[in-house]
Amino acid sequence: MSREITPRPLTAEAFAPFGDLLDTSRGPDFLINEGLCGRHHDRARLEFGGGAPGLSLFDAVPRSLPYRFDLVERHPRGSQAFVPMCLCSFLVIVAPDAGGTPGTPQAFLTAPGQAVNLHRATWHGVLTPLEAPGLFAVVDRVGAGENLEEYRYPEGWVVVP
Amino acid sequence: MSREITPRPLTAEAFAPFGDLLDTSRGPDFLINEGLCGRHHDRARLEFGGGAPGLSLFDAVPRSLPYRFDLVERHPRGSQAFVPMCLCSFLVIVAPDAGGTPGTPQAFLTAPGQAVNLHRATWHGVLTPLEAPGLFAVVDRVGAGENLEEYRYPEGWVVVP
Repeated sequence: MSREITPRPLTAEAFAPFGDLLDTSRGPDFLINEGLCGRHHDRARLEFGGGAPGLSLFDAVPRSLPYRFDLVERHPRGSQAFVPMCLCSFLVIVAPDAGGTPGTPQAFLTAPGQAVNLHRATWHGVLTPLEAPGLFAVVDRVGAGENLEEYRYPEGWVVVP
Repeated sequence: MSREITPRPLTAEAFAPFGDLLDTSRGPDFLINEGLCGRHHDRARLEFGGGAPGLSLFDAVPRSLPYRFDLVERHPRGSQAFVPMCLCSFLVIVAPDAGGTPGTPQAFLTAPGQAVNLHRATWHGVLTPLEAPGLFAVVDRVGAGENLEEYRYPEGWVVVP
């Protein structure tokens, strides 16, 4: 039997243990281009240990709630930022580390116009868009060396609406 | 009197002298997440000379055509990637370098789902979304040291529909 998780709206405070929320709610740090563009500057704690920063696109199959999962993963050498390329909500599943394996997962639902950056070595679910197209720009570590740990929970979880 | 430029659709080939087109048209480099996500891997030539990579949001006022401009700029120390956070088209104005100043500008019109990365020291116009919200994630160099050159054409240009 799966255990249920209800997603919370994504806020910077609630997400702080896991990563950075990128949105415009705090207002711009400064204006550029003769005042016509707000720059929300350097909003993510990026890490690319032993590798280089890369910019990739991820094109994922949209999911729906209830969403069942038992697999999470983490990248011990680097952060991973996900920028939706549509005004879409997506599901962000994360879990605290509990001595080398993930603890109880938490789920967040983004609002349109929000992106996230997962800090290095943060346990997280696979990319789960809830609308088509499931298209994201991803900033993460490129380079040699193992950078993926996976963990399968002995019992599954289900994210319910 | 302004000189007219007609924008072209953005293609990787036409844009190659100026930067990288990021989209899914070439197909994924590999599949991840049990086949449910295509990874279009490491598609941008990123440079952050003497600084660090940063992830910022830009929130720009949408423009419309005809669009008049006389100012272009470039960043001698780093690349700059623009990822639209809506399924929106935007205008990309670039110019070849001609001995330290920009030559004749060119304009490209993106399709929804396309992002761009301007190579280091590429002359370009300011960010010009054509639809609201003019919201972009930007990957560029963060750090000390002058990284902006501006040039104002003695005669203006106008991008016409």
